[in-house]
Amino acid sequence: MTLTVYADRMSQPSRAIIIFCKVNGIDFEEVRIDLAKRQQLSPEFQEINSMKKVPAIVDGRFKLFESHAILIYLACVFPGVADHWYPADLFQRARVHSVLDWHHSNLRSGAAGYVLNSTLGPALGLPLNPEAAAQSEKLLLASLRKIESFWLKGRGRFLLGSSQPSIADLSLVCEIMQLELVDEKDRERILGPHKRVMKWIDDTKNATRPHFDEVHSVLFKVKEKLQSTRQNVLPSKM
Amino acid sequence: MTLTVYADRMSQPSRAIIIFCKVNGIDFEEVRIDLAKRQQLSPEFQEINSMKKVPAIVDGRFKLFESHAILIYLACVFPGVADHWYPADLFQRARVHSVLDWHHSNLRSGAAGYVLNSTLGPALGLPLNPEAAAQSEKLLLASLRKIESFWLKGRGRFLLGSSQPSIADLSLVCEIMQLELVDEKDRERILGPHKRVMKWIDDTKNATRPHFDEVHSVLFKVKEKLQSTRQNVLPSKM
Repeated sequence: MTLTVYADRMSQPSRAIIIFCKVNGIDFEEVRIDLAKRQQLSPEFQEINSMKKVPAIVDGRFKLFESHAILIYLACVFPGVADHWYPADLFQRARVHSVLDWHHSNLRSGAAGYVLNSTLGPALGLPLNPEAAAQSEKLLLASLRKIESFWLKGRGRFLLGSSQPSIADLSLVCEIMQLELVDEKDRERILGPHKRVMKWIDDTKNATRPHFDEVHSVLFKVKEKLQSTRQNVLPSKM
Repeated sequence: MTLTVYADRMSQPSRAIIIFCKVNGIDFEEVRIDLAKRQQLSPEFQEINSMKKVPAIVDGRFKLFESHAILIYLACVFPGVADHWYPADLFQRARVHSVLDWHHSNLRSGAAGYVLNSTLGPALGLPLNPEAAAQSEKLLLASLRKIESFWLKGRGRFLLGSSQPSIADLSLVCEIMQLELVDEKDRERILGPHKRVMKWIDDTKNATRPHFDEVHSVLFKVKEKLQSTRQNVLPSKM
């Protein structure tokens, strides 16, 4: 009975699950569901997740989707996972839930909406939408300000003032990494003013190396392709 | 050391928390934060929840916001709460997390967006936005179809095929109750085709009576007001 993770490493919650498994020595088989080929819509995958989304897991006969629910499940059922990832203390655990819930309608909605509507849409068969991108950017910026001024307040280097990362750090940092895909100027404009956020991203990378970099390598390949496309488009405009 | 719940009963997650406390005999003090008067923006309330949103709780020195995180916390720290609300079994618990996570970007986003943009906006100082309402309605309808065909699949009367309600049933049903505010024709058009959803709403009401009705009474008062406003506006247009 092996754990199977259905994922596309271009999807930020997919990466969070894969990194979590690797960092914690959880044995798993990764099955790629290629979003660019719309494999999430296949009847076979719908048997795994009726919502047609990655990530999803199958552990024995147990199927689960929604990345936060998966991270919590893995932290609870695999005995080798250190407490800081999902603290047993009820107060600390409640605060981790609070960050994860906040993530959905704030950072996730803002960042994913911005990247999709400003950059990634065409790769998934969707048009760019500058108006929707601008609206998402507003929410993204407000969310980054809240991480900077509220969630990263305290002594520790991680969210909620912790000295070690939780599943919330991993989930939120993987989300922000998606901004690697947008034009470098835009990324710098959006992330640059948030110094604590930038340091926290580095701290989370360092705490999960070498897996963090390895799992993100496909994102950086796509980033390079997008950059060279932009450079090829620009001179022809001049 | 009493639990304090900061809430506005016009807010669906506020109602879920209050009903949960009452059904489970949890002693609490309710402090009203009037959203129509923008009391959530006051410096005093920002000391409680820096995100300027209800519901939020203070339990001794412990502050918490985000309604799902609060429901989980209350289910864990108050010993009288029956297991079905937040099952100790890891598999059942993971499924409850999965519904709650799904709720954020689907039913909640669709229903809250639809009610705000079609009906409630002006009461909160915001304009109506028919285009945004139409977009939210799409997501709301897709979410209701998923509840009908997927989450309510199985033998039991409640989500995930359970025979008793969990915090997910309470949270999602309180969300759908917000549709009481929209024009009766629209509510019937949206909810009517989802027979299982309608029955599940009734079952959840019955399982949490008399508290469910009592906590929703303010919603029905506002519904009446909105209806009489609509009736007074219509003849003058003729």
